[in-house]
Amino acid sequence: MLESLKQAVLEANLDLPKYRLVTFTWGNVSGIDREQGLVVIKPSGVPYEDLKAEDLVVVDLEGRIVEGTLKPSSDTPTHLALYRAFPAIGGIVHTHSPWATSWAQAGRGIPALGTTHADYFYGEVPCTRLMTEAEINGAYELETGNVIIETFQDLDPAMVPGVLVNCHAPFSWGKDPHNAVHNAVVLEEVAKIAYRTFQLNPAIQPMDQTLLDRHFLRKHGVNAYYGQK
Amino acid sequence: MLESLKQAVLEANLDLPKYRLVTFTWGNVSGIDREQGLVVIKPSGVPYEDLKAEDLVVVDLEGRIVEGTLKPSSDTPTHLALYRAFPAIGGIVHTHSPWATSWAQAGRGIPALGTTHADYFYGEVPCTRLMTEAEINGAYELETGNVIIETFQDLDPAMVPGVLVNCHAPFSWGKDPHNAVHNAVVLEEVAKIAYRTFQLNPAIQPMDQTLLDRHFLRKHGVNAYYGQK
Amino acid sequence: MLESLKQAVLEANLDLPKYRLVTFTWGNVSGIDREQGLVVIKPSGVPYEDLKAEDLVVVDLEGRIVEGTLKPSSDTPTHLALYRAFPAIGGIVHTHSPWATSWAQAGRGIPALGTTHADYFYGEVPCTRLMTEAEINGAYELETGNVIIETFQDLDPAMVPGVLVNCHAPFSWGKDPHNAVHNAVVLEEVAKIAYRTFQLNPAIQPMDQTLLDRHFLRKHGVNAYYGQK
Amino acid sequence: MLESLKQAVLEANLDLPKYRLVTFTWGNVSGIDREQGLVVIKPSGVPYEDLKAEDLVVVDLEGRIVEGTLKPSSDTPTHLALYRAFPAIGGIVHTHSPWATSWAQAGRGIPALGTTHADYFYGEVPCTRLMTEAEINGAYELETGNVIIETFQDLDPAMVPGVLVNCHAPFSWGKDPHNAVHNAVVLEEVAKIAYRTFQLNPAIQPMDQTLLDRHFLRKHGVNAYYGQK
Repeated sequence: MLESLKQAVLEANLDLPKYRLVTFTWGNVSGIDREQGLVVIKPSGVPYEDLKAEDLVVVDLEGRIVEGTLKPSSDTPTHLALYRAFPAIGGIVHTHSPWATSWAQAGRGIPALGTTHADYFYGEVPCTRLMTEAEINGAYELETGNVIIETFQDLDPAMVPGVLVNCHAPFSWGKDPHNAVHNAVVLEEVAKIAYRTFQLNPAIQPMDQTLLDRHFLRKHGVNAYYGQK
Repeated sequence: MLESLKQAVLEANLDLPKYRLVTFTWGNVSGIDREQGLVVIKPSGVPYEDLKAEDLVVVDLEGRIVEGTLKPSSDTPTHLALYRAFPAIGGIVHTHSPWATSWAQAGRGIPALGTTHADYFYGEVPCTRLMTEAEINGAYELETGNVIIETFQDLDPAMVPGVLVNCHAPFSWGKDPHNAVHNAVVLEEVAKIAYRTFQLNPAIQPMDQTLLDRHFLRKHGVNAYYGQK
Repeated sequence: MLESLKQAVLEANLDLPKYRLVTFTWGNVSGIDREQGLVVIKPSGVPYEDLKAEDLVVVDLEGRIVEGTLKPSSDTPTHLALYRAFPAIGGIVHTHSPWATSWAQAGRGIPALGTTHADYFYGEVPCTRLMTEAEINGAYELETGNVIIETFQDLDPAMVPGVLVNCHAPFSWGKDPHNAVHNAVVLEEVAKIAYRTFQLNPAIQPMDQTLLDRHFLRKHGVNAYYGQK
Repeated sequence: MLESLKQAVLEANLDLPKYRLVTFTWGNVSGIDREQGLVVIKPSGVPYEDLKAEDLVVVDLEGRIVEGTLKPSSDTPTHLALYRAFPAIGGIVHTHSPWATSWAQAGRGIPALGTTHADYFYGEVPCTRLMTEAEINGAYELETGNVIIETFQDLDPAMVPGVLVNCHAPFSWGKDPHNAVHNAVVLEEVAKIAYRTFQLNPAIQPMDQTLLDRHFLRKHGVNAYYGQK
């Protein structure tokens, strides 16, 4: 079942080491079939070089295993919470990519400082609040999803396709698993450039709203004119 | 038509990922045939690994498509403005290379701090002023070219073959597309070294004019004595 | 003798350049057979590309050469001191990996700043005190081991599988040579992310104990639920 | 003539891109035959990928071309001045490797901050004074050599096999061309680690003299005990 989605999720997982977003097994990608309400996700702790489509785990939106002999990623409850809360997204990526993780550990969102950022993220990539003891000691991975959702209560996840989980690392998403990885690569690049921008100019302010609008809308929405469509 | 120029533009575009100047499709190279007044440029949003000479787009200096079935780069009006204003240049590169982009986002020009810089750039690589709302909301890519031209009103683009567009990223140029990419590589390297120089010595001043002269003229002009000519 | 251990030590040594932990011959891995009380270690100064299983040196826990025609690593007395003092470890790695070495040269331990760290190190990766003149002029490599052991007098080496030797570089360890290299890779990654975290937020404090517990115990101990076991 | 020296100089030049010490043609290696008083050096501006042994230029210690059809490196007078002044050295490398160049542009020597440095450099890698207008406008490359020699008036070039030319870039040397490149790699690595050490601890002081002695003498001199000799 879900063979084409499995293939897409497999390829998206293999892109993580290709784009140098992961050390060892520190990352996972999932994808969703919205019609069937089923999610395909990487199994926990399996090295990318060994990963095959048949290793992927199929779960429903409540986390019940529908197909697969391996345990799904320990981050599965986070993925499912996001799929339930953000109906427009089709793929999710979690990594500990080092530049974005540095911002997450610093507890700082990444402000929009230039057009590279504005081409993909309509404003700051936010950093969640710290989680409470009760959340950490409870259903931790589910609560990780909840704190992301709380962070996006006034944000559109289609306009800001990523987040930094405070003291942890980034999650990003997209219309499908491939696009989610694309956004994870951009987030890492944007995190690197923003870090260096602050070193060069600690007083730098977020970019002009007009320029942010121009670049984001050049690539997104009905009037987009970048690319071949 | 313009087969050898197309080949040169193709190779120069493929050099962008080779020299790690681009992520995804974040860059483009063009070249000009001055006799015919025609520009060859990368199509918009096409991945480098798929790019072929026949995908390249030929436009005239007013931006009319003369040959090609794909849409030219969305940055084409910027390239054309520079070709019209700087008659000595034969190739232009735009990238979001991370070190130069960090300076652009910081709104700082890169001062000449050593001989590596002086071998290629006769003084600071300037950063443009911020663009106005009217410029951003108007013919944005054309106005991007105009703000570069304004920045060079007292500079010779042959002596300073690159610029940082404020809050955006670098453009560089050269006598042909290959040379423009060469200068883009140098600009990225110079941006990296200058960043680290400031971290080691925040009070560093631009280099001595005599040393700047010596190194620039060792490689450029009638008395150059570097290389085999 | 010890053929499978030699093979494991060989592969672990070859992983050092693979993971970019070493320049030239700046690193070594050893492994121990606890039943026989014998240690297999890299010979001194031999390039990794030339290294063969038969080049490895077998020594007993007092440093007597039991097998091998080459001189063992000059760091052998440090390894042996750690094997004698930490009975649970099966492999040791020493490198001058650049991020961890920067912390060692700065004389600073690496605090636990996020979940990447917490997944492997239960608290700060400590930095030893500076060694005394007598220790340096005496049995220097043995005393290097002793100052590490002193640093761990109130720490469990299984919970914190690495250390920074002040003004020198990191050592790490694990249940076997492969696992020791794994921890060396993590230590380098954690050192890099922590460095950048401090640049982004110089006032950052060590992470919450509850979150540290959650992540460390998710991967270690009887209630671990990461991976396929 | 000098075939084995030419081969050594060729291989040492090809090691510059292999060890990522150069961009384009920004570096050169020479070697000397002390008996004949002849120096073999890279030709000016020739890309490494095209370089062949027969392209190398043979000059005497006064700079007269003895063999070769190409122009020698424009830095040849610097190399020759060092060979004349430092009779124990057999190979010289000049690069614009980015970490060492950052220190050179900052006008700062690299203090000995840890054992990685102490294994190769017996104390600070010095930075020359700025050159005078007369020196720059005169025999510039010869004067570059002279300012290095002046910097070493109280230093032994065999104990400190490298230097930073202020506002320019590093030179390093060794007993032969291969060893000179080895030291250039170490200098770049040491420059990187020292930079990060200062970021982590701006007040860090040079390392203890006893530890510096121990490490330098462990690898050098009659009582050396590192490696297989």
